[in-house]
This record gives sequence, structure tokens and C-alpha cells, in this order.
Amino acid sequence: MLNASIGAPALCVVAGLAALLFAMVLTKRVTSVAPGDEKMVEIMDSIHEGAMAFLGRQYKTLLIFIAALAIVIVGAGMLTGGTAEGLNPLTAVPFLVGACCSILAGNIGMRIATKANARTANAASQSGLNKALSVAFSGGAVMGMSVVGLGLVGLGVIVMIFPGQADIVNGFGLGASSVALFGRVGGGIYTKAADVGADLVGKVEAGIPEDDPRNPAVIADNVGDNVGDVAGMGSDLFESYVGSVIAAIALGASMAIGANGEGVMVPMLLAAWGIAASIIGTFFVRTGEGKNPQKALDAGTYVATVLSIIGTFAICKFVLPESFSDGVNTYTNMGVFIASVAGLIAGTLIGKITEYYTSTEYKPVKDIAASCETGTATNIISGIATGMISTGLPIVVISIGIFAAYYFAGLYGIAIAAVGMLSTTGIVVAVDAYGPISDNAGGIAEMAGLDHSVREITDNLDAVGNTTAAIGKGFAIGSAALTALALFSAYTQAAGVASIDIMNPMVVIGLFLGGMLPFLFSAMTMQAVGRSASHMITEVRRQFREIPGLMEGKAKPDYARCVDISTTAALREMVAPAVMAVVAPLFVGLVLGAEALGGLLAGSLVTGFLLAVMMSNAGGAWDNAKKYIENGHHGGKGSDAHAAAVNGDTVGDPFKDTSGPSINVLIKLMTIIALVFVPLFL
Amino acid sequence: MLNASIGAPALCVVAGLAALLFAMVLTKRVTSVAPGDEKMVEIMDSIHEGAMAFLGRQYKTLLIFIAALAIVIVGAGMLTGGTAEGLNPLTAVPFLVGACCSILAGNIGMRIATKANARTANAASQSGLNKALSVAFSGGAVMGMSVVGLGLVGLGVIVMIFPGQADIVNGFGLGASSVALFGRVGGGIYTKAADVGADLVGKVEAGIPEDDPRNPAVIADNVGDNVGDVAGMGSDLFESYVGSVIAAIALGASMAIGANGEGVMVPMLLAAWGIAASIIGTFFVRTGEGKNPQKALDAGTYVATVLSIIGTFAICKFVLPESFSDGVNTYTNMGVFIASVAGLIAGTLIGKITEYYTSTEYKPVKDIAASCETGTATNIISGIATGMISTGLPIVVISIGIFAAYYFAGLYGIAIAAVGMLSTTGIVVAVDAYGPISDNAGGIAEMAGLDHSVREITDNLDAVGNTTAAIGKGFAIGSAALTALALFSAYTQAAGVASIDIMNPMVVIGLFLGGMLPFLFSAMTMQAVGRSASHMITEVRRQFREIPGLMEGKAKPDYARCVDISTTAALREMVAPAVMAVVAPLFVGLVLGAEALGGLLAGSLVTGFLLAVMMSNAGGAWDNAKKYIENGHHGGKGSDAHAAAVNGDTVGDPFKDTSGPSINVLIKLMTIIALVFVPLFL
Repeated sequence: MLNASIGAPALCVVAGLAALLFAMVLTKRVTSVAPGDEKMVEIMDSIHEGAMAFLGRQYKTLLIFIAALAIVIVGAGMLTGGTAEGLNPLTAVPFLVGACCSILAGNIGMRIATKANARTANAASQSGLNKALSVAFSGGAVMGMSVVGLGLVGLGVIVMIFPGQADIVNGFGLGASSVALFGRVGGGIYTKAADVGADLVGKVEAGIPEDDPRNPAVIADNVGDNVGDVAGMGSDLFESYVGSVIAAIALGASMAIGANGEGVMVPMLLAAWGIAASIIGTFFVRTGEGKNPQKALDAGTYVATVLSIIGTFAICKFVLPESFSDGVNTYTNMGVFIASVAGLIAGTLIGKITEYYTSTEYKPVKDIAASCETGTATNIISGIATGMISTGLPIVVISIGIFAAYYFAGLYGIAIAAVGMLSTTGIVVAVDAYGPISDNAGGIAEMAGLDHSVREITDNLDAVGNTTAAIGKGFAIGSAALTALALFSAYTQAAGVASIDIMNPMVVIGLFLGGMLPFLFSAMTMQAVGRSASHMITEVRRQFREIPGLMEGKAKPDYARCVDISTTAALREMVAPAVMAVVAPLFVGLVLGAEALGGLLAGSLVTGFLLAVMMSNAGGAWDNAKKYIENGHHGGKGSDAHAAAVNGDTVGDPFKDTSGPSINVLIKLMTIIALVFVPLFL
Repeated sequence: MLNASIGAPALCVVAGLAALLFAMVLTKRVTSVAPGDEKMVEIMDSIHEGAMAFLGRQYKTLLIFIAALAIVIVGAGMLTGGTAEGLNPLTAVPFLVGACCSILAGNIGMRIATKANARTANAASQSGLNKALSVAFSGGAVMGMSVVGLGLVGLGVIVMIFPGQADIVNGFGLGASSVALFGRVGGGIYTKAADVGADLVGKVEAGIPEDDPRNPAVIADNVGDNVGDVAGMGSDLFESYVGSVIAAIALGASMAIGANGEGVMVPMLLAAWGIAASIIGTFFVRTGEGKNPQKALDAGTYVATVLSIIGTFAICKFVLPESFSDGVNTYTNMGVFIASVAGLIAGTLIGKITEYYTSTEYKPVKDIAASCETGTATNIISGIATGMISTGLPIVVISIGIFAAYYFAGLYGIAIAAVGMLSTTGIVVAVDAYGPISDNAGGIAEMAGLDHSVREITDNLDAVGNTTAAIGKGFAIGSAALTALALFSAYTQAAGVASIDIMNPMVVIGLFLGGMLPFLFSAMTMQAVGRSASHMITEVRRQFREIPGLMEGKAKPDYARCVDISTTAALREMVAPAVMAVVAPLFVGLVLGAEALGGLLAGSLVTGFLLAVMMSNAGGAWDNAKKYIENGHHGGKGSDAHAAAVNGDTVGDPFKDTSGPSINVLIKLMTIIALVFVPLFL
């Protein structure tokens, strides 16, 4: 029987297991392909080991963090516990389960992604474009299916263990958030420290090409692609995915929608159906020789989206009561459907807008490239201005989405919009994780000295990967904002405050402090990249100087040492921003109270969203302006304009790959901390 | 007899007239000094004429803007009028008076500032440091006294004409805001278009030094210093000054503090006494040969501050009732005193924090200079990160200030804190306007070929001017934020909404849209500078090419043409951002309602304050990092580090002198528009 405490979560578990089963099938599909010659295998193994080494070291730090937070939960629970309003110490259980699920998803995804790279290159060499696309996409889809599979299995089990106890279930989201913090911040610092180190010494000082095996940091750089765009992105969307469902469950429960908990069931059913839609979508990702692989990836996403909409309609129509009330207004089941579709459309539009501002096809990037003709300064100003302007449309889109969701289904509608936007997370992550695999495949083809025609195929795949990465970033930001807003709504319901009134100066203080945090957080992560990169630069220079025969290709560099430096630096540098993200909401909640904390969350949501969009888009636009010039415009490679473009790209690196994406996690983490610890603030 | 409708405003008029009388004395003091030889007079006249030409052209555009807005006020008043809740068409009267007062203050200030420059240089040459300081400071003090004098005369007269009609008096603030919009945005674009044009072609391409008379844009550049830092800064602080008093009057009236309108009287009395304190303070600005002029300026400010505090204590103690209530809490007269002092201290602290982040004396600028060693990209990242981090302390300071003011005196306290912060506006503007006069004096000394020892004195004065400019910028931002918050409080009272609740998604949409506007506005003004500068560059290149004998110093460049280009470009480019600033709040208020508009104002206040601080401080820090390197660090002038620093400085120019300061006006203008037009949104 379909109900909120057994039936619906059981369906989640079943759908999740199906996703995991499909991930196993995909894994087989990837590993059954030969990884190529000895040299390719050697490089692949280096990347794989480097990635696993990073994860292993990260787990140790994570363990301390998770343990500390679990102790805080249990301790706070014992202090306030016993009463119905207290924090339940059992919240630590879903917290730990959520963290473990996210860690496991990341581990599986990374494990396969770092085995798919050489196989993609080899498939390109042996069988051509379609097979290479299939391997790369299958590798990425393992990550996608692990994220949604483990997300729903874990969440479903937790809901069954704690039926009707939304306050405890929230712990699952906090666990996911904690892992995402490490994935995004630590991963973001890692990837850019390695990238900048490899580029600055290798390309600029030593004058050797990208992905040259003589460069000591080349493996760290390739590891970094996976650490950032597979594990980091995956943990971020894992968090949004489960966070949106949790928020909808919490609101469905507190608003008592439906006589039998239908409001609680619906988000779970939507998520479960979304997995089916995503799996079916993957079968449409296929291309032919000489065709644009972008179309194949788009086809998969569109199929999943349309299927998701159809299923959503059915679920809303047949599960929800025809009308329900939040005490003030009355809404219909079709209103909920509209809210969900509003979220899906908003997510798609934000992705498209991101593409407009960051693709070489459109005016903004062309204008930035043109501004390089008058030097670096004009390029920087032009990029920052473009990043700022690019906040306009996403804000309008998300505002319309919020308006539609709220108008047709109240606060519950906002959470459902987030669930709708994230229902196709499985295939979105798959398309996203495909990017670094293709990128790595190109690197391996270069390092292993494969035929030029192979490199052409991998370059083709990689170029598409840059576009999907940009769209994925937009989607990640949009979904983070909507999830944070849904969690914020759940927080306000849980806090039971009459209002969070901007006319109350305590709320204004919260707004000011919250608005400032993303600025501080961005600055901290940016400076962390700078410091980490300088360690890397020193080490790469040392190896070039001290290892005899390295430049002549007679000796091998010490790749592992560079991997180690990135790892150590990333984990050390993320401590300060991570602590700030956890302590700030607790401090404000405890000292200034639940209303000021509400202001803080709203403030950080607004400026966080704006800064994340601005930084990601400015960074993406600079990157592609450089590529545009390299393609022969404004004097091409080696021109003064190109030198200016390289500077812009370097500034944009921490913008788009560290600080911008880290903000996604910041705004969600602070909100879920507020939601979990709300009993302490009342 | 001291009362709210005659006595107190009459005192304002008297104090204002005293300030204007003192401005006349100062004018005499300046004009009685000989302006030097024929060449110096010629240059001075060119700058003077250029500045007056800009103002003249600006007035024509302003006239259209003001007339249009007046028609809107009268039209909206006729449509909604008649009822007590409607917009009173008479609001157009104070609107026009406010605009005229601000225009007049700017005109007087500019007129004298552009006559004090050559006289400062000549005084340095004839009598040494102390006399030069006295002339430059007196020139700046004319602007300071005009701002507070005309501000209080105008406001006092309006209050006497419309006693007890706070809604009509608000129009005065809107007039001031409209002029500030032109002063800051137009002035900001003008000054940087001229500066970038003069530097890029003159210094970089033609290889001639700064302030070389052969550079066709040199006069425009010197005019720009006055347009930006005298007229622009003056109109900005004029707006804050009258805005804070208006907000306090409105809140004092709506909260009915004191049986005889004592709550309305106090802000007027504080402002009136602040003029006396400022005048007395100016007498302490004197230095000796070989001493640091900074100390002299500080002494004047500190004396004015201490006097202001003493007077505030007396006014609160003897005018206000011992205790009063806002209906919920009871406050004391000493609470109001504390609120006022909290504002004064917050303003001083924000200035000091700005100095810390932008002065060559401290770590942030030194770190940025060090980052230039690894190139432009690291310099840019370092500067942006510093700008972002520098938002932290000002936010904390202003939050504590808001907390203290609210805790001790409620919403009224917040408005009084703004009045307190701005009570010493007279001397603050004087110190600020002293900067461009000294800067111009140095330019004239260079162009007229005065002795090296003269240039040393003017360089000394100019270096101090850079510090005071940075502090002044911090003060302007802080006071803009506090004034906007006070006006926002007045708006919420006037709107009579029960709450502006962030739990209401319409308010969240307002927050998102409002938060986005400063980003869009900054991008627009930044791009405007880029376009205007490129016109200037084209013209300067043309003159170098087409005027025979120019480089050899045998022919004179066409200065007027460059002045004209800056003027035309600035006035054309400011249309779009200006329209957006006016239309956005009207649109949201009319379409989404008074609560969403409240969200919009709060959102723009928060991100506007953060962006303004970030951009001003990043720009100031880059500027001084360049100076630090030019003083011989990291390889000095001509090194690679210096080239990187020049790029950072160029990026920082529109940050600190156009976009950052323009945001001050944006947040105040949108709030006062909401306040004036609130009857339309209900």
C-alpha cells in the first residue's frame, strides 16, 4: 500500500537500487573496453591512484569533521532533549547515513571516471566518435546514477526508520551538506592549485605544451579535473537533490497536506520517477561519426525532462487530493504540478542563459575577446562587467519560478519546484561528469603520443564538455538557490516564528551579516588557491631544476609529490572557510536568535546566488574568450590580445572552479544547519 | 520659542546662513591669494572653464530629468490626491527646492575649488607648506560649508512652509537625490574617461609624464578630479545629510515623540549644532613647515567630533522628554544620545578601516604589491580578494551601530544614528574636497614648470589627499547605508504595512531583484567608462597625429575638445543607469506592491553596501600598491611588477571612482523614491 511511512520510501529505495544496478551495468560497459597500450594504462593508473589518494586523505579530515558535528548534535540533543521541542539526539543517525551515502557515491563515481578516461581515448582510436562518446558518457553516468541511487536508498531507509519525524530526517541533509563542503571547497582548491601550478611553470616558464608528460604537475592537473568536476559537482548536486526532497517532506508534513500524508509522499514519488526518467534518457545519448556530440547529450536530457513532466502530472493528479489548504489559501493538485514544472523550466533556462554568457558563439564572449585588444585591464573590466550583468536574467527567471510555485501551491510549491528542477539530477550529473573524462582522455592521448586523428575526436568531445560544464554550473547554482530557499521555508516553519520582519533591525543585521559571508568566503577560497598554487609552483620548479634529464624526456618527474602537495594544501586551506560556514549560523542563531538567523540565511542566499553566478560566468567567459582568440581571432595565439586573454583566464580560474561553486554549498549548508539546530535558537 | 514648526527650523536656517557666511569669508581668504604667474592663471582658467562648462551642460540634462520627475509627482498627486492617503502634489515644491539647493552648493563649491588650485601652488611657492595647506583646505571648506549651509537653509524653510507635513518634506530629499545621481554617476564617468584617456595615450603611448601640458586630455583630467571628488562627493553627502535629517523628522513625527514635537526638533537641532562644531573645527587645521599635514586635518575633524558629541548630549538632555515610548518599548533621552554617538563612532571607524585596507602603511596593500611579482593575474585576484575581505569589518561595525541605536532608542534611534554620523558633514566634505585642489595644484606646478621644491610641497599635500579621499569614500558609503536604512524605516512607517516578512516569497523576490540591481548598475557604469574612455583615446591620438609641432611643445593642443568629449559621453552614458534607478522601485512598487518593494530596498541596501565597499577598497588598494612599487619596492618603476600594478590600478579606476560611489546614490535614491511615492503602492 502506498503511504508516507512505508510505501513511498520503499519505492524510493527500489528506484535507488535500480539506479545502482544500472550503475553496475554501466561500469561493466566501461571496464569491458580495453584501456589501450601500456603507456596509456600507466597514465590512467597514475590519475586513478592520485584521485583515490586524495579521497583517502580527504576521508580522514572528513571523519574528524563528521565526528565533531555528530558529537555536537548528540550533545545538544541531550541538553535540550526529552521535550518535544528539543533537538532529538537520534538526528545524528541520519546525519551519519547521509554523509556515508554521499561519500560512497563520490567514491564509486570517481573510481569509474578515472578508469573511463584512457578507455575513451582508446575507443576513439579503435572505433571512432560514437564509441568514445558512449564510454565517456557511461563513465559519467555511473556518477549520476550513484548520486541519485544512494541519495534515494539512504533517504528512503531513513524515512522508514523515522516515519513522520521530519526533524530527525533533516539530519540526512546535514550529512550530505558536510560532504559537499569538502567536495566543493577542498576539491575546488585542489583542482586550481594543480592547474595554475602546471600552467604557470610548464606552459609559461618551461614552454612545454599542455598535458606534456615532462610536466611534474600534469597528473595532479588531470586528477584535479576529476576532483573538481566529478566528485565536487557530484557532492554538490547530491546535497541539492536530497535537500530539496527533505524540504518538501518537512513542508508537506508541517502543512498536513492530504489526509494520509500525501504531501509527504509526493516529493519521494517525484524523485523515484525522476530516476526512471533519467535511466531511459541515457539510452538516447548516441551519435554518429562527424556529428555533434552535443546533440546526443541534449537528446538524453530532453527525453528525461519530458518523461519527468509526464510522470509528475500523473503523480500530482492521482496521489494528491484535488485541493488542499495551508490555512490561508486553497491550492489544487494541478497547482503542485505547475510548481514542479516551473522548477524544471527555471533550471533549464538558467542553464541556457549561462551558455549564452559563456559560449564563444554569442556576443558577450566575443566582446570580451575584442576588449583584449586594448590590454589586460580592459579584458578584466569587461569580464567582471559581463559577470555582473549575467546575474540579471537568472534572477528574473528564478523570481518568476518562485512566484509561479508560490502562487499555485504556496510554500509547499517552492519546495516542489526545487524537487522538480532536480528530478533529472541523474542525467544532469552524468552529462556533467562526462566532461572531465573527455578532458582526461585528451590529456592521455597527448601524453601517450596517440595519432592526431584520436586527439581530434577527444578535442571534439572536450569542447562539448566545456559547454556542458558551463550549463551544469548554472544548473548547480540555480538548484542550490532553490533548494536553499525550500530549506529556508522549512526552517521558518520549524522555528515557528510569526514573521521574519525586515522592519525589525535585528533581521536587518542578520541580512547584513549573511550578505557579507559569501564575500568573505569567496575571498578566503580565492586566497587559498593562491597560496596552494604557489607551493605547487615551487615544487614544479624544483623538479625541473633538480631532476637531471627531465626536460629532455630522459627522466620521469615525481608526479606523486605534486599530487601530494595539492592534496595537503587543499585540505589545510579548507579548514578556515569550512569552520566559518558551520559556526556563523550557529553563532547568530544562539546569540541573536531565530529571526536574525532567518535574516542571515536570506542575506547569504541573495548575495551568494549573485556572487556565484557572477564569478562562474565571468570565469567561463574569460576562458572561452581565450579559446576564441586561440581559434584565430584578434591576432590568435601569441598576440598581445592573447596574452591579455590568458591573464583573464587565470583570474577566472578560481572564480569559476573554486569560489563560485563553493558558494552553492555555503548557502545550503548554513540553511540546513539552521534547520537541524533550530530547537536551540528558540 | 523653540518648537517643531517654527523655532527649530528657524535655528536650522540661522545655522545654515552662518555656514554660508563663513563660506564667503573662506572664499575671500582664497581669492585674496595671488594665483601666480600668467601661465598658472591660464591653466587655472582652463580648468575652471572646463568645470563650469561641464556643470552648465549637466544642468540642461538635469533640467529635463527634474522637470519630468516633477510632472510625475504632480500627476500622481492629482490622480491619488485629495484624500489624506494620497500623494500631495505640493511635494513637487520641496523637490524643486532640494534640487536647486544641491545644484547651488555644487556650483559654489566647484567655482571656488577650481580657483584655489593655482593659488595653492603659488602659496607653496611664496610662503611654504602651512599657507598652501590653508588655501587648499579653505577652498575645500567652501564646498563643505555650502553643502551643510544650503542643506539646512533649504530644509528649514521647507519645514516652516509645510509644518507637520513630513510626507511633503520628503520631496526635498528626492530633489537632493536626483542631483546626486547626476553628480556621482555622470561625474564618475567623466572623471575616469578623462583619466584613462590621458594616461593611456599620454603616459603609455606617447611616453610623456603625468600632467604634461602637451597632453590634450590633461585639462579634462584635472577638471575630472573636481567633477568627481568635489561636485560628485559633495552632492552625495548633501543627499545623505538632508536624507538622514528628513528620515529622523519623519520617524519623530510618526512615533509622536514628545508632547510638542521634540522628536522632530532634535534632528534639526543636532544638524544646526553640527555646523557650529564644523566651523570651529576648521580653525584647528594648521600646520608647520616639515610637519605632516594629515595631523592638521585630523585635528580639525576630531575637534568637530568632540564638540558635536558634547552638543548632542546637551540637546538630548534638555530638549527630549526623559522617557518616551514607541508603543512597545520605552526609551530614554540618554538612549537617543547613545544612538547618535553610535552613528558618529561607526562613521569614524569605517573611515579608519578603509584606511587600513587602502593605505601603503599596512599589510593588505603590501601583500597586493607583493602579488604583482607573479604578474597581473595574481595582482587582480589579490585585489579583489582584499576588496571582498574588507567588507567584513564595516558590516560588523554598522551592525553593532544599528544594534546599539535600535536597542537604546528604537527605529528613531537608527535615524538619529545617521544624523549623528553626518553631523560633522561640513568638515568632512571640506577635508575631502581639499584632495582634488591639492592634486590640481601639483598638476599646475608641473605644467607651469615651477621649482622642484614647490612640487615637493604639493606632492606632500596630495599624498595626504589620497588618504583623506579613501577615508572620505568609506564615510560616504557608511553614511549612505545608514541614511538609506533610516529612510527605509521611514518608508515602512509611511507604508503602514504590518510587516515585510521574508517568509513571504513576494518579499524574497523583492530581495532577489533588489540585490541584483547594484550588480547591474555597477556593470553599466563600468562599461560606460570603457566606452567614454575609448572616445577620448581616439581624440587624443588624433590630436597627436594631426596637430603639427604638438609633441615638440611648439603648438597647443585643443584642450576644450577633450573636455567636451568627456562631458558629452558622461551625460549620454548616465541615462540608462539613471532611468533604471528611478524606474525599478516604481515598477516593483506598482506591480508587486509595497512589501515586495520593501524587500527590493533591503536587498539593494545589503548588496549595494557590500559591492560599494568592495569596489572602493579594491580600487584604492590597487592604486596604492602601484604607488608602493613606484616608491622603490619590488623592483620599482619600470619593473614587471610595476607593469602588473599599473593594470590593477586601471581596473580599479572605475571601481573606486565610478561604480563604487555611484552605488551610494542608487541605494538612497531608490529608498527615497519609495518613500515619496508610497501612496501609489498601497
